[in-house]
Amino acid sequence: MTRMVEDAFDVVVLGAGPVGENLADRVRAAGLSAAIVESELIGGECSYWACMPSKALLRPAIARSDARKVAGLRESVYGPLDALEVLRHRNSVVGDWKDDGQVDWLDSIGARLYRGHGRLVGPRRVAVTGPEGDEHLLTARHAVAVCTGSRAVLPDLPGLPGAHPWTSREATSSGRVPERLVVVGGGVVGTEMATAWQALGAKVTLLVRGGGLLPRMEPFVGEYVAEALATRGADIRTGVDVTAVVRDGGTGPVTVVLDGGDHVEADEVLFATGRAPRTEDIGLETVGLRPGSWLDVDDSLRVTGTDWLYAVGDVNHRALLTHQGKYQARIAGAAIGARAKGDAEPAPWGPYAATADHAAVPQVVFSDPEAAAVGLGLAEAERAGRRVRAVDVEMDQVAGAGLYAQGYRGRARIVVDLDREVVVGATFVGPGIGELVHSATVAVVGEVPIARLWHAVPSYPTLSEAWLRLLEAYRG
Amino acid sequence: MTRMVEDAFDVVVLGAGPVGENLADRVRAAGLSAAIVESELIGGECSYWACMPSKALLRPAIARSDARKVAGLRESVYGPLDALEVLRHRNSVVGDWKDDGQVDWLDSIGARLYRGHGRLVGPRRVAVTGPEGDEHLLTARHAVAVCTGSRAVLPDLPGLPGAHPWTSREATSSGRVPERLVVVGGGVVGTEMATAWQALGAKVTLLVRGGGLLPRMEPFVGEYVAEALATRGADIRTGVDVTAVVRDGGTGPVTVVLDGGDHVEADEVLFATGRAPRTEDIGLETVGLRPGSWLDVDDSLRVTGTDWLYAVGDVNHRALLTHQGKYQARIAGAAIGARAKGDAEPAPWGPYAATADHAAVPQVVFSDPEAAAVGLGLAEAERAGRRVRAVDVEMDQVAGAGLYAQGYRGRARIVVDLDREVVVGATFVGPGIGELVHSATVAVVGEVPIARLWHAVPSYPTLSEAWLRLLEAYRG
Repeated sequence: MTRMVEDAFDVVVLGAGPVGENLADRVRAAGLSAAIVESELIGGECSYWACMPSKALLRPAIARSDARKVAGLRESVYGPLDALEVLRHRNSVVGDWKDDGQVDWLDSIGARLYRGHGRLVGPRRVAVTGPEGDEHLLTARHAVAVCTGSRAVLPDLPGLPGAHPWTSREATSSGRVPERLVVVGGGVVGTEMATAWQALGAKVTLLVRGGGLLPRMEPFVGEYVAEALATRGADIRTGVDVTAVVRDGGTGPVTVVLDGGDHVEADEVLFATGRAPRTEDIGLETVGLRPGSWLDVDDSLRVTGTDWLYAVGDVNHRALLTHQGKYQARIAGAAIGARAKGDAEPAPWGPYAATADHAAVPQVVFSDPEAAAVGLGLAEAERAGRRVRAVDVEMDQVAGAGLYAQGYRGRARIVVDLDREVVVGATFVGPGIGELVHSATVAVVGEVPIARLWHAVPSYPTLSEAWLRLLEAYRG
Repeated sequence: MTRMVEDAFDVVVLGAGPVGENLADRVRAAGLSAAIVESELIGGECSYWACMPSKALLRPAIARSDARKVAGLRESVYGPLDALEVLRHRNSVVGDWKDDGQVDWLDSIGARLYRGHGRLVGPRRVAVTGPEGDEHLLTARHAVAVCTGSRAVLPDLPGLPGAHPWTSREATSSGRVPERLVVVGGGVVGTEMATAWQALGAKVTLLVRGGGLLPRMEPFVGEYVAEALATRGADIRTGVDVTAVVRDGGTGPVTVVLDGGDHVEADEVLFATGRAPRTEDIGLETVGLRPGSWLDVDDSLRVTGTDWLYAVGDVNHRALLTHQGKYQARIAGAAIGARAKGDAEPAPWGPYAATADHAAVPQVVFSDPEAAAVGLGLAEAERAGRRVRAVDVEMDQVAGAGLYAQGYRGRARIVVDLDREVVVGATFVGPGIGELVHSATVAVVGEVPIARLWHAVPSYPTLSEAWLRLLEAYRG
């Protein structure tokens, strides 16, 4: 016999990744009670199989590469990384895939954790099936928030299921370095994982359907990154399609077959070819929505056509990035809190509207060289009908770049809205530029006029002096 | 017989450091003719004996220290730096103290270079004595700009002249690593040079008159930096005065005598105890000004009481920083150009006013850990009668910090003006934070409201996420 317990909360959150956690925190701060439902590890994809372990794998690659560009130091870092030590550290960064710390944090904010699978069973009602088959029926007085994130999608290819391909999960959690790794997909996951495993000793082949890497950034970014990967020995093939994957008997080497008949043999193959929303089995059909779909939301992250259902983070498909999901969680949490007390008008740039989702989504790719961008790219701005001008600066014109790394190669671009004379987008590629993008994010979000930015003096000799060269180029 | 040649220009610039060079560039861009007078190397202190060589010495120290905090890499960088290689690279960064490249650049902008010592000989008139004793008399139709910078000041101590102490020039250009180095002064030069020479192998003793290092930044900055220097083996003594310096016969070891009778023996002693304006011998007395004084200017960098004399960079004592001097040069150049055509109103934040000198002077100290600040410190803001609140975040609360460096230690602070709800100051200390400060500079200069900064999302997991923690702490 299943025991069924009924509980009521102001807010029920499905999914305890960083987005769900932040949302619970914000509604608790607004004085509401919150339940949070999770069937896997508390902390989510980001903590265990994405941002955290990937950066733990990438940091040694980047730090060694930076050190190799410094006189008096480079000689000591020609050798291989201690891969075992890197993997061991990665394990410690993810808490050995245990979530005790995160559970304590949920306790500390006073959110009630339900371990199990949560499904909507009608408006404002969620059923949770626990690991022992126990059932809880949760009623949400104000809101249910779907924060279940996304998962990797494998293409429908002959032989693939039996070939045990890596997705982002295996690529970030593998306990050993494959001798040969094929990476399918040139987006952020593919590029970062190619970088990490190459640095750890794998011979990497990178197969890209399109024309280059990191296609969501300005085209020059992928060129810099691809050139550097290739120089370090990666075999990058663009414009290719994988037609089949074969691993005989499910063990031994894997063969990746390309259109045209070429094939590549490797020890592991990573498919980083897309994401799907984790909404297939959360009871969307009980509230008139389609299971497995991305959920449309307004700027307060409330699902179109409802007054109680929110979809926050990857599931709404606005920006599949942890930090942007956390931002949405702060906004949605504030909106839910305000609506519980009366109403919340989601005015642009106000506390209840995720306006930055449209104007200023930043992203840092921990490739080597690093890449970072915020706001609109040039082509994107032009497609949107904006009157814009892009100015570029080669980073070797920046004194701080040459001091940071000998033979520094990189580029910076700003896209300026000519009608308002504000920066609407910025892109940087080069060693050490990961922290530069936030200055651009502040400029874009703050809509700081170019004439005022002229007074924002970058310190000499830092990489930030790219800003001076960009503004000179724009005004010049 | 001395030959005397007379020439007339729109603008005559005294000093061809980065400030004079930028000023000449800006007035040329405004369509004016320009002469530039220099008795030493074109490119100035910064290129040969300050920013450039010091950063060339510091970068290996910082990159090695960063690498030592990375799993899988640290074991390879336990050993010493290749000091000879670092010094060789430093030499190449300063062009072996030759200025050919800079001369070519002056040519390219169409500025006329006069090698020699320039002195005012009355309003708008400058006499240049060349290296062969030849004389030129230059008349400036619109403006003379004093951009002669500053020089290190040695205290008046018994024995010091005969002890051949280092100033910043010798500390940045030395061709060998002293076994033991005493550094007198805990400001930026003292701290950076202690860091560099320690990393290159010197046993460093740092003698500070006050209570700590980097006294112009928030007090916690000096604490972090001093602790790290001491952990690496530096002997830091605060609250001490040097009373004498002895080097027997002018060769052999040097003995630094302290008040109270203690003494420290070393191979070299660096005095980094202050700067004086290089205005003693430029004919200020011929235009009613006092030789050797700092020159008072308005926000267009025009000397008080004149309508033709400008003082730009260190000489006006507004901010003794290369980047701020270059900023002033851009502003003064624009003001001179506009005034030549009519008039230029130096309205705050306009193109002819160096308003950032009062509100947003950034500085990055390339210590280990790095330190950076912009705008007002807390005590400074309070002294100015502002209603402010400071919020601090320990960097180990920032996920990106732990990924950047194991055992990351550092702190971030913003100072918020409570009446206007804008950030008026920010300070960061920690590995890799040098590029963070520009985001704060944009926020301060742009006067971006806190409520809007809430939408400036830092990428996860970067160090910039300190911003999120700071804003949460402020709002929380």
